[in-house]
Amino acid sequence: MASFARLVRFLAKDGRTYYGDAILPRGVTDIAKATQAKIIRGQIFGKHEVTDQVADIRLLLAPLALEDVKTVRCLGLNYEQHAKESNMPIPKYPVVFYKPSTSLSGPTDPIPVHPLAQEGTGLDYECELVAVIGKACSDVPESKALDYVLGYAVGNDVSHREWQLQRGGGQWSLGKGFDGWAPYGPGIVSSKLIKDPQALKISTKVNGQEVQQSSTKDMIFGVAKTIAFLSQGTTLLPGDVIFTGTPQGVGMGRKPQLWLKDGDIVDVSLEGVGTCTNKVEFTKAKAKL
Amino acid sequence: MASFARLVRFLAKDGRTYYGDAILPRGVTDIAKATQAKIIRGQIFGKHEVTDQVADIRLLLAPLALEDVKTVRCLGLNYEQHAKESNMPIPKYPVVFYKPSTSLSGPTDPIPVHPLAQEGTGLDYECELVAVIGKACSDVPESKALDYVLGYAVGNDVSHREWQLQRGGGQWSLGKGFDGWAPYGPGIVSSKLIKDPQALKISTKVNGQEVQQSSTKDMIFGVAKTIAFLSQGTTLLPGDVIFTGTPQGVGMGRKPQLWLKDGDIVDVSLEGVGTCTNKVEFTKAKAKL
Repeated sequence: MASFARLVRFLAKDGRTYYGDAILPRGVTDIAKATQAKIIRGQIFGKHEVTDQVADIRLLLAPLALEDVKTVRCLGLNYEQHAKESNMPIPKYPVVFYKPSTSLSGPTDPIPVHPLAQEGTGLDYECELVAVIGKACSDVPESKALDYVLGYAVGNDVSHREWQLQRGGGQWSLGKGFDGWAPYGPGIVSSKLIKDPQALKISTKVNGQEVQQSSTKDMIFGVAKTIAFLSQGTTLLPGDVIFTGTPQGVGMGRKPQLWLKDGDIVDVSLEGVGTCTNKVEFTKAKAKL
Repeated sequence: MASFARLVRFLAKDGRTYYGDAILPRGVTDIAKATQAKIIRGQIFGKHEVTDQVADIRLLLAPLALEDVKTVRCLGLNYEQHAKESNMPIPKYPVVFYKPSTSLSGPTDPIPVHPLAQEGTGLDYECELVAVIGKACSDVPESKALDYVLGYAVGNDVSHREWQLQRGGGQWSLGKGFDGWAPYGPGIVSSKLIKDPQALKISTKVNGQEVQQSSTKDMIFGVAKTIAFLSQGTTLLPGDVIFTGTPQGVGMGRKPQLWLKDGDIVDVSLEGVGTCTNKVEFTKAKAKL
């Protein structure tokens, strides 16, 4: 479906923002290392073309513009070892929650931690395979589900465990939905290039030290099964973004527990896609007018 | 802020779809009774004008076009008596979950019940005051929060209790997010006309019999407090839709319990706004291709 190999959105050296098809040196697969891209003209979920015009990348942005994103769904407890470390049963059906589109941010953006999220303890990371829907679908069978995927990115489902688990009345979205708490990218690799999304290494580093290391083959509900399930009675739209859950090794599950703090650098990586590198930045509230 | 009094979106007798400002006969406040509207030209969250051109309404649609909606947030357990009937504690913070924008539908649309949602028991209604954000805001104080509201509608947070509570791993969104499970309307009454959203009668009828009857004054977190809370560290955008919770009387809380069935007619009404009337329609899955 996709006309590109590796979709990026970027601030170019000419000061403008473009969609582009990343140009990678031979042997390099991490989109974060791209310094140039072929500019894409048109609507990314409509008529568009990859041009021969090459632009220099100054900064990679969130791979989709806010106006091109529809609903952001997330799965919880979707790796067996993570369900175990969370002391939760293996789910029979996918466990679904949402993030607002305002939580999405780019592969090198800071992760802002608002004073509300500085209360309590439990700031945590979650590396996840992110699937982006490219064509509308509903009631799609598992065997056809991947045909509706535009491509894949890696994301960090940043979570505040106290807000998520204790202060939200049991509903997880509040402690996971702050502005910038879903960095993803560094681009979107076309599903033409990733034939099997269930065979990719996925990992997280905090300040350079590996804390999560797994493979998407350990997902309980793979991408195809997830899309087939979610699309029952629910229309998935182009621009829907699905965070597919995190493997074991989150800060909450470690002994001793490991919470992110101001200034920490978090890398989330997915094989064949690349790495997002985001710095935790404690912020102040905006001035009350 | 709003240039209109009662925003409607409608299929006109000329076969086209318009935004409009509903024209109501003297003494009538239920927007569902409007037969004509002044056509609005332009972007509803941008530059637009209410023209003097009057169109005949054939059918009222969801008040916002899908492309004008951003995030749909919902509150749970936000009326004291409803929290009690649910055997849940009064929440200290708002309990927040989400619906996808595809769940939104119009004031007379059927409520489709997919075979997946015909499994198990517990199809239920929830009348709610719906607030629509008109201007972007973050960290807004409670005293200014209503300035960011475009207007108010009434909605039905249709819920399947078994999917919501038992099959979703404790996360409510799955059992509340099917296509068409958030009818709202019949239009959006400007916040200029509703100075106090906490003094409105709200009710539900099933097949003509009243099953919920309350006032928005019983909300635990009123609209202003809700917006002030939600906007902490989270930017609310024009086109964000907030379902603010339901009062007591839901089918789950009744003795005996009352579940919706195929063909039932559900009316949800809000004083000064009007009534949405939606028929429950059990459907088949789309043919698997």
